Amino acid sequence: MIKAVLFDLDDTLVDTTKLAELARRNAVENMVRHGLPVDFDTAYNELLELINEYGSNFGRHFDYLLRRLDLPQNPKWIAAGVIAYHNTKFAYLRSVKNARRVLLELKREGYKVAVVTDGDPIKQWEKILRLELDEYFDDVFISDYLGVKKPHPKIFLKALRKLDVKPEEAVMVGDRLYSDIYGAKNVGMTTVWFRYGKYRDREMEYVEYADFTIERLEDLLKIIRGLNNEEKARSDTEVHAD
Amino acid sequence: MIKAVLFDLDDTLVDTTKLAELARRNAVENMVRHGLPVDFDTAYNELLELINEYGSNFGRHFDYLLRRLDLPQNPKWIAAGVIAYHNTKFAYLRSVKNARRVLLELKREGYKVAVVTDGDPIKQWEKILRLELDEYFDDVFISDYLGVKKPHPKIFLKALRKLDVKPEEAVMVGDRLYSDIYGAKNVGMTTVWFRYGKYRDREMEYVEYADFTIERLEDLLKIIRGLNNEEKARSDTEVHAD
Repeated sequence: MIKAVLFDLDDTLVDTTKLAELARRNAVENMVRHGLPVDFDTAYNELLELINEYGSNFGRHFDYLLRRLDLPQNPKWIAAGVIAYHNTKFAYLRSVKNARRVLLELKREGYKVAVVTDGDPIKQWEKILRLELDEYFDDVFISDYLGVKKPHPKIFLKALRKLDVKPEEAVMVGDRLYSDIYGAKNVGMTTVWFRYGKYRDREMEYVEYADFTIERLEDLLKIIRGLNNEEKARSDTEVHAD
Repeated sequence: MIKAVLFDLDDTLVDTTKLAELARRNAVENMVRHGLPVDFDTAYNELLELINEYGSNFGRHFDYLLRRLDLPQNPKWIAAGVIAYHNTKFAYLRSVKNARRVLLELKREGYKVAVVTDGDPIKQWEKILRLELDEYFDDVFISDYLGVKKPHPKIFLKALRKLDVKPEEAVMVGDRLYSDIYGAKNVGMTTVWFRYGKYRDREMEYVEYADFTIERLEDLLKIIRGLNNEEKARSDTEVHAD
């Protein structure tokens, strides 16, 4: 019997990849508009490489970009990048299509719902609060805050314990085959791979750990209802067999 | 003959004190709204004390606030503070009343106009670009970037040299009697103290360095026109005396 549904945040409930791409494009465009002496494509590609190497939570993308382009550390260009990046992030932050409907249905049907995510705790909470998603969640588990990252079993086990459910009573939904799916399967949860965002074709070596694969978040509802009906049917049969 | 007008930024062209107060109030209000277990006044007063001690450019106001209130480092509360603070800053950033009209008149009358400010270079440029004030300025001098703070003579002398004017051909306008007025007077500039914002009654020991005091920014125009007319009259008299 499934009693709880755990969600990853980025590219599962929040449309992160799309937003980040738009924010970066707007940032570079605004830097060029304010006098950055290189063309858009050169600067944008250099920025993508930089993010690839330093990670997306690195706090100094724009001044490193200037260094890589052999340009002086002009604070005007950096400010132009920062402004456009933040404006885009704040104006275009969106939940994934139908995410709110799925959360609402799950709550209505009595499931416990939680978030299990990696990343900077304040930034993750910023997304949740800006989208006003917090009311749906029984709890939010952010790995950086707990000192352990997915797929480490500890974060999943902690979430299950706090939600007071057994691993076999819980479903993990996420876009990352390694951290979300392999991680949750290892502690005995049912796993639903949401094939979405930039990881839709990556980490395929872990695909065997996914019990289900969905391309639209709303398909999760059918899966969970199906699992519980199946179990109900099985237990009904067992009763009849007495 | 006055040829250039140099402006401080915060509380001279940008309405900083008012904005910061509103942003801080909204931040604390949003923290309380999201479960911070103390009342608004307690939290707000603690925040003001903290800013007083650590300075307004300190980057970790909200987590230090929780420490001071003996509360756990809940990233949700910090995020609530950060969101409301940024939203306010971006939505309510304003130039000082009539600042744009004064800048426009000065440019129309052929004066060179520049900014000489302390503070984080990227944050200062953010304000200038968000308000689209950059088009008015022949140059922007930010002390943190140049490694020297007002009232050090170097920053004023550098600005004058770059603008190609002599100290006696330049006016400095600012809200701080120490850094702006005392600093500019020391290198031989004409000084206009804009008595505005939280420094309107402070640093009075330097008031003797102010050639003029104004309570409304637009009064600057009369002063500058007056100075140049006076000089014109004097040189006319000299001609007649020949």
